[in-house]
Amino acid sequence: MSEHALERVFRPRSAALYGISRNMQNRSNQFFLRGLMDQGFHEAAPLYLVNPNAEEIAGLRCYPSLADCPDPVDYVISLVPALTAEGLVEECIAKGVRALHLYTGGFAENLDPRRAELEQRLIARARSAGLRVIGPNCMGLYHPAARMAFIPGHPKEAGDVSVVCQSGGNAMDIISGLAQRGARFAKVVSFGNGTDLGAAELLEYAAVDPEARIVLAYVEDTSGGRALFEALRRCARAKPTIVLKGGISSAGARAARSHTASLAGSHEVFTAACRQAGAAVVRSLDEMIDLAVALSTRPREVAGPRAVLLAVGGGFSVLTTDALAACGIDLPELDGSTLARLRELVPTDGNSIENPVDTGYMGEDAEAALRAVTEAVAHDANTDFVITMLRGRDLPLDEQRRTIEELADLQERAGKPIVVAARRDVGELADEALRLAYERGVAVFPSPVSAGRAAGLLLEWRRQREGLPLLP
Amino acid sequence: MSEHALERVFRPRSAALYGISRNMQNRSNQFFLRGLMDQGFHEAAPLYLVNPNAEEIAGLRCYPSLADCPDPVDYVISLVPALTAEGLVEECIAKGVRALHLYTGGFAENLDPRRAELEQRLIARARSAGLRVIGPNCMGLYHPAARMAFIPGHPKEAGDVSVVCQSGGNAMDIISGLAQRGARFAKVVSFGNGTDLGAAELLEYAAVDPEARIVLAYVEDTSGGRALFEALRRCARAKPTIVLKGGISSAGARAARSHTASLAGSHEVFTAACRQAGAAVVRSLDEMIDLAVALSTRPREVAGPRAVLLAVGGGFSVLTTDALAACGIDLPELDGSTLARLRELVPTDGNSIENPVDTGYMGEDAEAALRAVTEAVAHDANTDFVITMLRGRDLPLDEQRRTIEELADLQERAGKPIVVAARRDVGELADEALRLAYERGVAVFPSPVSAGRAAGLLLEWRRQREGLPLLP
Repeated sequence: MSEHALERVFRPRSAALYGISRNMQNRSNQFFLRGLMDQGFHEAAPLYLVNPNAEEIAGLRCYPSLADCPDPVDYVISLVPALTAEGLVEECIAKGVRALHLYTGGFAENLDPRRAELEQRLIARARSAGLRVIGPNCMGLYHPAARMAFIPGHPKEAGDVSVVCQSGGNAMDIISGLAQRGARFAKVVSFGNGTDLGAAELLEYAAVDPEARIVLAYVEDTSGGRALFEALRRCARAKPTIVLKGGISSAGARAARSHTASLAGSHEVFTAACRQAGAAVVRSLDEMIDLAVALSTRPREVAGPRAVLLAVGGGFSVLTTDALAACGIDLPELDGSTLARLRELVPTDGNSIENPVDTGYMGEDAEAALRAVTEAVAHDANTDFVITMLRGRDLPLDEQRRTIEELADLQERAGKPIVVAARRDVGELADEALRLAYERGVAVFPSPVSAGRAAGLLLEWRRQREGLPLLP
Repeated sequence: MSEHALERVFRPRSAALYGISRNMQNRSNQFFLRGLMDQGFHEAAPLYLVNPNAEEIAGLRCYPSLADCPDPVDYVISLVPALTAEGLVEECIAKGVRALHLYTGGFAENLDPRRAELEQRLIARARSAGLRVIGPNCMGLYHPAARMAFIPGHPKEAGDVSVVCQSGGNAMDIISGLAQRGARFAKVVSFGNGTDLGAAELLEYAAVDPEARIVLAYVEDTSGGRALFEALRRCARAKPTIVLKGGISSAGARAARSHTASLAGSHEVFTAACRQAGAAVVRSLDEMIDLAVALSTRPREVAGPRAVLLAVGGGFSVLTTDALAACGIDLPELDGSTLARLRELVPTDGNSIENPVDTGYMGEDAEAALRAVTEAVAHDANTDFVITMLRGRDLPLDEQRRTIEELADLQERAGKPIVVAARRDVGELADEALRLAYERGVAVFPSPVSAGRAAGLLLEWRRQREGLPLLP
């Protein structure tokens, strides 16, 4: 099996932090040195610090230059100012470095023509020598399987979600948002201006990367045109791919230009191209995270838009029903046999067995009654999935775990997704319970409306994929 | 000055909890007995407990019946089942009670014709004897100035927001949501089925209630038609009035019927009527709360939809700009003199002085620099308001307070709203800082997009009020 060319970028045998500060409070130390050490990169492979004015930082030896590092250096993270980066590129070429990550900003995104020229010159020089560049103006790589990270605190276990993200801040929001929901990551690349390694090449790679089962892409620059579309198509045909485009409004496009020097094309054209390619299009990070959860858990198989909502509170149920309708999710009348069963289980006064089912006042043995209600609606013939509200905040962890296990079992028995919605935030559940839910294929959402919105997006994605090859 | 008839309902000289349980864990004890005691009602006025099987509950004496209560009873809260409520109505009439709040459900909303008849008979009997009824099937009254509440934990200080709310759960969400934002309440009425006192009469009262400066209404039943429209018009011409309609989808309308026996008319007709009346229409509780904050603070005077966004993070700024555009809020290019000033203040690399202004990397004296940046954009000639992101989570309380004071002063100096947005939640700020912000007229929102959405709703409301009398 031949190795994909980008494996040489993503699995370095050694790395250097170039221009690292002696001040550990410095922003880039906080990000990269602490990020790599948090993942234990330095314990598995040489991590060189390049600073001519220091002997040692954070217990690691410092070297005056790349040339002084004793062994080959595969991957360099640059923390130096833009105007000194040309010298660094020459040093990298001389040392035989494979990949240079330019955290360094101040290039084309400064909207100064001389800086744009500098960037072009520098990238052309690197390319001519076979040196790949991530950036400039980005956070670079989080790849837990290779113990790489650009900030401390992200999960150390590897997972199956890959992220191709033009923005470092958005990459961090995606990682922390999805990690909280129990997901783990294959590779996350923040590529900034993307002057050498850009969205197209990264998506081509994600399409064939065996670590990646689901791919998320945030892009601002769509000037890649045909190449970007082809890459997106290859990726979206191979695995579920979710795309979020930044800079779709005119003010947003201007903001994208001064963020990553991006040229945004027509949003309508791009959205149509994504859909034609078989990718799902979302409009916010929250939608992206919710849809990624839905696509990696049982809701991926949801048969249609008809849901049962199991909630507490009449007014809350009414407003949620209206909001679900706006997402294309209907709460139809339940089947006669389900209603008959609910009549046995649910006290009449203060509740409703209509759909939404409002179980506010369940009397003495509320737990057992609610379990029976969930069982009954899960087998309802008129509906495609169940949204149940979890009272998480006050439950002990073992009860949270038990509830998740029961819902996972019921989901299998009923052959139908049973999604869990918090009242306002998944944080009502313990991290461990959320991780268990994800592993057992139970999707958890911060609200019933976000659950319904994710289901609506998923069904839309499946409709637009009709005629395309089935995903594994 | 003659007293409005409903003052007799809302300012009882005494109250009775009818059918109170000896079990303090009982749901209605938790709600009403603890709610009234939390506000100190029992310290200011007689609070009678009616339970023939108890001598004393929670330190208060119990009476076997209303007739046994030694003095007049103005207000009765009924916790008895629906089928015994007719006897209670007769007891109330015999005792000369002014208002009966039927927390009791199980009437028309059960969708059983015999229960609907019972409800009609009971209300007709009460009306014939001059006894007003709140409900059935509702939480009743929270009126801090009269020390009344239907649940413990709500603010004890009185304020100027009145809420007319068909749902008890939604009333609680409005109270806790707005209280967290620093607002306080005049009167909140949860009126349930609204068979006697309904939305129309409560809005007529809110229009002239001197305690109420802003009015929020959640309604499911719009069968009141003309009377409801006239009441809404009178209220909306007198004070800012925000309306949320539950049951606008067909499934939602069915849910509303089994929640409060409501007959929902056409949503389009209702929305058009609200707008014609001069009320603001929102689509969710979050929008209602955000707009209420905007209408009671400086943004009420916002001149137009052109904002400056002061944020941290390029990708976040881009996505926020797109989302603001979808709310009708534009981020135009800043005035040349503002840009010149920002060029002096903001380091070039890694930042952007375009609008949105991204101040990620402000160097050593970041605080002072950010203050100067805020001052500069607040005086920009091209824009109508400023959205600034507050780093609240890690700030000590006195710094939070100082920041709020400075923004309040700058807002006055610049004659332009400066709204504060958290990254994800107002909970990043201390309650005390949020209260101060509200008092000083500084609006705080859970995200910059919710800030923009509130401004968009406010501008829409002002447009549709053109030609109507100016509000005070």
